[in-house]
Amino acid sequence: MSVTETSAPQPSAPGTSAHTSAKTSFETLPTFADVEEAARRLQGQAVLTPLLESDALNRLCGGRILIKPEVLQRTGSFKFRGAFNRMSRIPEQDRAKGVVAYSSGNHAQGVAAAAARLGLPATIVMPADAPEIKLRNTRALGAEVLTYDRYREVREEVAARVQAESGATLVPPYDDPQVIAGQGTIGLEIMSQAAALGLKPDAVMAPCGGGGLTSGIALAVRHLSPETAVLAVEPEEFDDTARSLAEGRPLRNESGARSICDALLAATPGRLTYALNSHLGTEGFAVSDEAVREAMAFALRQLKLVVEPGGAVCLAALLSKTVQANGRTLVIVLSGGNVDDARLREALEEG
Amino acid sequence: MSVTETSAPQPSAPGTSAHTSAKTSFETLPTFADVEEAARRLQGQAVLTPLLESDALNRLCGGRILIKPEVLQRTGSFKFRGAFNRMSRIPEQDRAKGVVAYSSGNHAQGVAAAAARLGLPATIVMPADAPEIKLRNTRALGAEVLTYDRYREVREEVAARVQAESGATLVPPYDDPQVIAGQGTIGLEIMSQAAALGLKPDAVMAPCGGGGLTSGIALAVRHLSPETAVLAVEPEEFDDTARSLAEGRPLRNESGARSICDALLAATPGRLTYALNSHLGTEGFAVSDEAVREAMAFALRQLKLVVEPGGAVCLAALLSKTVQANGRTLVIVLSGGNVDDARLREALEEG
Repeated sequence: MSVTETSAPQPSAPGTSAHTSAKTSFETLPTFADVEEAARRLQGQAVLTPLLESDALNRLCGGRILIKPEVLQRTGSFKFRGAFNRMSRIPEQDRAKGVVAYSSGNHAQGVAAAAARLGLPATIVMPADAPEIKLRNTRALGAEVLTYDRYREVREEVAARVQAESGATLVPPYDDPQVIAGQGTIGLEIMSQAAALGLKPDAVMAPCGGGGLTSGIALAVRHLSPETAVLAVEPEEFDDTARSLAEGRPLRNESGARSICDALLAATPGRLTYALNSHLGTEGFAVSDEAVREAMAFALRQLKLVVEPGGAVCLAALLSKTVQANGRTLVIVLSGGNVDDARLREALEEG
Repeated sequence: MSVTETSAPQPSAPGTSAHTSAKTSFETLPTFADVEEAARRLQGQAVLTPLLESDALNRLCGGRILIKPEVLQRTGSFKFRGAFNRMSRIPEQDRAKGVVAYSSGNHAQGVAAAAARLGLPATIVMPADAPEIKLRNTRALGAEVLTYDRYREVREEVAARVQAESGATLVPPYDDPQVIAGQGTIGLEIMSQAAALGLKPDAVMAPCGGGGLTSGIALAVRHLSPETAVLAVEPEEFDDTARSLAEGRPLRNESGARSICDALLAATPGRLTYALNSHLGTEGFAVSDEAVREAMAFALRQLKLVVEPGGAVCLAALLSKTVQANGRTLVIVLSGGNVDDARLREALEEG
């Protein structure tokens, strides 16, 4: 896609300038103004999730932890935001051809829900072994689900075939300016909700797969408060963003890597997301599956929230002291809660 | 307590008048102005819980269901509101003597947390067989816990003994004007949050034990919108409020009654709460433990919320069609989420 497809007026001189790098100079990266425009489009469509606090978590961490529970977002994850923002910009003449997306699950539900609200047909390409709840919920939202074999087929190719046949608009899971801008609305909300409490966060932590959530949040947070750090948290064997940012070039994960965080299994950072995260100074951290299980159990017992493995990595980073609070004010995003019963029971037994 | 203990100015002519009945004319019932004053006192102390919506629940019920998740309230239940409001009115000369309360658990944690924030010593009288999580959390909040045998001792007597020895102020779990007014702030928030969505609820449903939550909500909701009904939902064998309101006089439950809803096991309505609910036209409904387990599982899977049995009765009433939505806008309060792991696993297995 290109920005000329968008129906919104393009900002000519955004507050955060120079959002281009050598690798991406041919493409317009999203700006802070895009995040503001996304917030206007999402008004009344996305849930304004609260900013919660837990005395127990504050005590354990020795800091002030503010919790942004996107598990309470429409479809149970933040993905609705980016999908709706992107899809609300599809030009009139392309709407009837619908949309196509590939996803391990949360983006699938986000696109399906946005399509239902915008009145667009949607085809979602999902791995056949995705959590059953994600397959079921995507179908329940009215989308057509096309499954593929995660180990023998390439999802981008399956989606491209659908696109070629139907003329549908592809809604990428993260590497798209308007998807990133949509996720960035979480950063806007965090800063405004924290300000209402008289607080300016020292850091905002977000789970990181392809980097759409982290880079969108960085776009909003670093513009509003340059002294607030943005931390990307990944599963241990999928720390491509952390390593890429540390080395200054995009790196890939080992191909045999495994993690229970099914939402965060991207092999390498996105092109746009990496450019943004790199430019905006995002730092990376990684946590073990064991720490994630403990965090899921803590969320159930103390926060009363169901958090999926990939959604619990920031909480895991705090509880395992991978990130130290040390008297600081930290915000953590719990990005999704779509998890099978078996995995929940496992967290209660082992966490 | 009497209203002369309060430090707030007393409203002389509240909007909702005639809040007295023959049975309670000797005592001042709380008014709408008390709820407004409670909201001011709770500002920045209680969590402003969001008003959520679930496409899946709307589809299932055939109506528009707004969800008020008090499981996200400080201490994991709404009880903090009433406790803090009552305790913020203890006169200076009595503060050092502290507070005493009896509770199966949620009120205990509410009082303990309010005491910690107000700097008061607290003694909590709890049944020895209360859910382990509630005993542990109450102690973690800094309160002294005094356990008693639910089947051989009378909790009111144990608390009276503490009161006589220490001069502590008793914080009743529900039958107190300022406790009721504190819980009523939930009704204020619901009406304002619904109005922000352009909605006026046809009914607000709340779990009912002693009736503090229901009567407080009725006080706020019926004042702001006389055409909005307030529904009290109880466990099947503990439907004392429903039967009392239907018959026009306070009735007791059978002494051998059992339910998994440990937070809703009051034997009979409170005096003040019954007077208010009766005067304000609250209606009662009852649900089975089986319906409650299904509701708990639904909350985990679809709402991403941990809800304890007593907190799930309104959702159970909707899912079991005990209360029919029929195209109406209904609000349900999920009043608490303090539940042991075993009960959660049971809900996932059987619900």
